[in-house]
Amino acid sequence: MSNMNKHEQQPAPAGATQAPADYFTGVAWVKPLVAAGHPTDCVVSEVTFEPGARNNWHSHPHGQVLVVTAGTGYYQQQGQPMQLLRQGEAVSIAPGVVHWHGATPEGRFTHTAINPSASQGMVEWLQAVTEEEYQSYQA
Amino acid sequence: MSNMNKHEQQPAPAGATQAPADYFTGVAWVKPLVAAGHPTDCVVSEVTFEPGARNNWHSHPHGQVLVVTAGTGYYQQQGQPMQLLRQGEAVSIAPGVVHWHGATPEGRFTHTAINPSASQGMVEWLQAVTEEEYQSYQA
Repeated sequence: MSNMNKHEQQPAPAGATQAPADYFTGVAWVKPLVAAGHPTDCVVSEVTFEPGARNNWHSHPHGQVLVVTAGTGYYQQQGQPMQLLRQGEAVSIAPGVVHWHGATPEGRFTHTAINPSASQGMVEWLQAVTEEEYQSYQA
Repeated sequence: MSNMNKHEQQPAPAGATQAPADYFTGVAWVKPLVAAGHPTDCVVSEVTFEPGARNNWHSHPHGQVLVVTAGTGYYQQQGQPMQLLRQGEAVSIAPGVVHWHGATPEGRFTHTAINPSASQGMVEWLQAVTEEEYQSYQA
């Protein structure tokens, strides 16, 4: 993807490591903000997607909240159209809802990811988002 | 406070309303991101403190996570020194821990506030942070 290549030289966000290729298409970065084991039982991370990058379809047994901190990205819930997520917006994802999120082809996208009741399970990964699925956005 | 007056003309952040004067000193703004009643049971807000503003001493029955999204602010846990919170940093506050947070005198401070298990209680407000307490920061 030419847009991904064009941006590949950007440095990793401070404190972040690359997200596992098994569950992501393209390059994404995860910076831990609150690790497992804290008394709130929330695991909180900052996730940055390079242009074109996204995670696999997945669900969270206790749901998840995303808060966009930079850029504009995509969010799609299974069976529904892709939607844009803009800086300052949040999405509350109910337990068990299959979905994915990631950058547009045009720019980096960063969100805070909040996982409640994390000690009881965080995520169930499914298949990758195909190019056809990824390119189905209609404004 | 001259610094507060100097900045009072800044517009409110989009989508925010002023935080209740009963529990805040100075001007702060609260923008709801995830309201009560969502299936994650997390209530998430963006809170912006004008220079010099802070909330009262308080605690959360189920704890709270703060993620700094803009500026540098103060955080103090009862019985401990004030500490600086910088953009990109987070603090995980255990249930029942008495604390306060707010802006420095020098600039606006914005954090995301994450309240887990919100349906079971969010906050217990205590007394205001005095000027003497607020001015006790030592770098």
